[in-house]
Amino acid sequence: MPTKAFLTEDEMPRQWYNLAADLPSPPQPPLGPDGNPVSPDMLAPVFPMNLIEQEVSQERWITIPEGILEILWRWRPSPLHRAYALEKALGTPAKIYYKNESVSPPGSHKPNTAVAQAWYNKEFGIKNIVTETGAGQWGSALAFACSLLGLHCKVYMVRISFDQKPFRKIMMQTWGATCIASPSNQTQAGRSILDQMPDTPGSLGIAISEAVEEAVTDKSGETRYALGSVLNHVMLHQTIIGLEAKKQLQKMGEKKVDIVIGCAGGGSNFAGLSFPFVNDKINGANIEIIPVEPFSCPTMTKGPFIYDHGDTAKMTPLLPMHSLGHDFIPPPIHAGGLRYHGMAPLVSQAIIEGLLTPRAMHQLECYQAAVLFARTEGIICAPETSHAIAATIQEANKAKEEGKEKVILFNMSGHGLMDMAGYQSYFAGQLVDYELPEHEMGDALKAVENLPKPKIVKTGKW
Amino acid sequence: MPTKAFLTEDEMPRQWYNLAADLPSPPQPPLGPDGNPVSPDMLAPVFPMNLIEQEVSQERWITIPEGILEILWRWRPSPLHRAYALEKALGTPAKIYYKNESVSPPGSHKPNTAVAQAWYNKEFGIKNIVTETGAGQWGSALAFACSLLGLHCKVYMVRISFDQKPFRKIMMQTWGATCIASPSNQTQAGRSILDQMPDTPGSLGIAISEAVEEAVTDKSGETRYALGSVLNHVMLHQTIIGLEAKKQLQKMGEKKVDIVIGCAGGGSNFAGLSFPFVNDKINGANIEIIPVEPFSCPTMTKGPFIYDHGDTAKMTPLLPMHSLGHDFIPPPIHAGGLRYHGMAPLVSQAIIEGLLTPRAMHQLECYQAAVLFARTEGIICAPETSHAIAATIQEANKAKEEGKEKVILFNMSGHGLMDMAGYQSYFAGQLVDYELPEHEMGDALKAVENLPKPKIVKTGKW
Repeated sequence: MPTKAFLTEDEMPRQWYNLAADLPSPPQPPLGPDGNPVSPDMLAPVFPMNLIEQEVSQERWITIPEGILEILWRWRPSPLHRAYALEKALGTPAKIYYKNESVSPPGSHKPNTAVAQAWYNKEFGIKNIVTETGAGQWGSALAFACSLLGLHCKVYMVRISFDQKPFRKIMMQTWGATCIASPSNQTQAGRSILDQMPDTPGSLGIAISEAVEEAVTDKSGETRYALGSVLNHVMLHQTIIGLEAKKQLQKMGEKKVDIVIGCAGGGSNFAGLSFPFVNDKINGANIEIIPVEPFSCPTMTKGPFIYDHGDTAKMTPLLPMHSLGHDFIPPPIHAGGLRYHGMAPLVSQAIIEGLLTPRAMHQLECYQAAVLFARTEGIICAPETSHAIAATIQEANKAKEEGKEKVILFNMSGHGLMDMAGYQSYFAGQLVDYELPEHEMGDALKAVENLPKPKIVKTGKW
Repeated sequence: MPTKAFLTEDEMPRQWYNLAADLPSPPQPPLGPDGNPVSPDMLAPVFPMNLIEQEVSQERWITIPEGILEILWRWRPSPLHRAYALEKALGTPAKIYYKNESVSPPGSHKPNTAVAQAWYNKEFGIKNIVTETGAGQWGSALAFACSLLGLHCKVYMVRISFDQKPFRKIMMQTWGATCIASPSNQTQAGRSILDQMPDTPGSLGIAISEAVEEAVTDKSGETRYALGSVLNHVMLHQTIIGLEAKKQLQKMGEKKVDIVIGCAGGGSNFAGLSFPFVNDKINGANIEIIPVEPFSCPTMTKGPFIYDHGDTAKMTPLLPMHSLGHDFIPPPIHAGGLRYHGMAPLVSQAIIEGLLTPRAMHQLECYQAAVLFARTEGIICAPETSHAIAATIQEANKAKEEGKEKVILFNMSGHGLMDMAGYQSYFAGQLVDYELPEHEMGDALKAVENLPKPKIVKTGKW
């Protein structure tokens, strides 16, 4: 009764899968402030050109450079586990598999793209990478990657997280990164905010503005910005998860998967696992593919598909995506990584095409699922990941009602060892379920209604 | 350039290695309060008989039950990594390998014996396991194991750690264990201490007394005690580490190891990696085997080989071991797992026989090594583990001076994600090196001088 599947180094995927090549309508370009498409050249002060080329690539398969594979191999392939104990606890005929991305040294899937981005920046001659981080998961992963590749990494961390989660900051410091609270005195954007609101707790929007400003104003030409989700090249780098999973499922004797599930904040871990299966679906396979979000930040289930900014301060181009508006501030759920107003354009467009069936979950049901998972499978998951587990349990229970032996695969995107405060609040009975009141939802939707509309409509041709 | 070696399920070791079978002199039995050997029957209220039989076994190879293998397989075999990046940073001709035990869900090697002990207890009909924990690593591992096997687990956690490290407690709670601060009102030993010292921060000695008392006074017959280190059966269960490592080194093309290194508090992770190599040494191989301890708790390098109690309250039998005395209280270094007055009898006897060459390290050098390791190999290690890394760096530098291509293997026994407070203090310049003043060392040694002497002397016959 094997509980997991391995892959040798020789069997590791050698190419990433690019969904942009297979979507029925090609992805729409980002738009500038004037409403015209942003050309690759205009992004050159922000990202190195080799990543910009990936961002706009229409190639289906993109070779993973050996230098990146060598580093990924330190913890990849990640295990694919069969969740026998969870299945037994649920009494379900469904077969549940999960891909365990928590085995990376920073503890999540984030290093898959952090290593790739750091490697491409280094290839392009960049010496410093600047980014922002909210809860700290992305900042930690980029600090880790830059450390291994000998780049300097600077992280603007939202002040409230900086103060409340000192250990994430110490992780980054241990990997040699500079981590400072945002807003800071080091950028024009930061100083301007501090003048107006000296006691602000900060926000991801402000931190992005600071990081982008530092990258584009650096005179040396050796500094660039990095983003941990949303963009096409980030989704691309994460597809190694799903490509490994497909090979591992074959080794476990599975010929077909019925349901694929991942939590989705900006969309990267979900895309990483699911896009290779979206490809199968486009080619005729009958698979249900479910991105899961919190009820308190219902980007995919309630937000329109619209052109919106990626950040609050409107420093980024307009991106075609499901959005609740760049001013939207979600309630303080513990799954910080799912508190984002937008969604990756590639995920958003796959939703419009009917390839994905998004679902929203409540916080308490997610923690309940996380605890059951810990007590059966033994792994304490991140609060974000608990959303995927809760949806998996719903599907396993449905399979039980229907008496069907479905095959379910979900992404165990990260462990929760740095997030035990959330579990503490849960056990203490201090957590509540948030759902946006109708008037707040209305306000959010009103804020986005005048934004430009992408030209993509559902083709249904797949 | 493969950086790690894998093993398939079929290649996993199927037997543990028992060093007791090969030591030149057989291990001495534990002694009771009357100075006479403790018979297996006398231990029956504390441990299940199947584990007591393992404790006194002289069989060289003991088959690992399938039920245990199935659980270990969830995260085992642990990776064996070649530390190319660390080698490069040191400019050493040495080849450095490390066994990465941090990949278990609780984050260390401890589950190797926690799962085995929980499984044997369950086989024997036991329903509740009681233990103590200091920093929380062992309590977490046992909570994890009991959760997977459906046993109830109760952990007496030293009060100061209970208060200072709330997240370890929440981990145990997530895995369904009951974790209470010690001293507590739930045992005679706890109440008696609280009467005298209501504000005591507690100690490992007190917590052991409470856990043992609860096990032996339980009327149901369904409760036993478990210990996470020191005892022979614990060392046995950990040997899967070294047995896997030997197969993995072969896969990496290594025919011979020159130096094997592990940190040692009670001795279990060190024994787990090294005992299979001690076997090679007994059979003629030229290997240097180094257990590493802190200068502030120099059990192996300064403590005599003596019969001493395992706990402060003298609840345990007298064990033949290197000891600084059961009343010894080491300085507050961050490596809590190395702050133990004694050492596993099997490790102690191997020292007496000249099979091991213990070494003491200072705290600051260990943190320096940990940071270099994080920035080259990418893994943030536990403060305990940093002692093994610091000794490895010493040996790699020595190989450089000598111009020799030595093969060094060390045990990466656990990650430090729950121990970031230590790194924080290190970066803030708040840590100091402790070495016991001569008079304190003298007091400690005086305290043990009247204890019974084990009859084992160095045979040198191996």
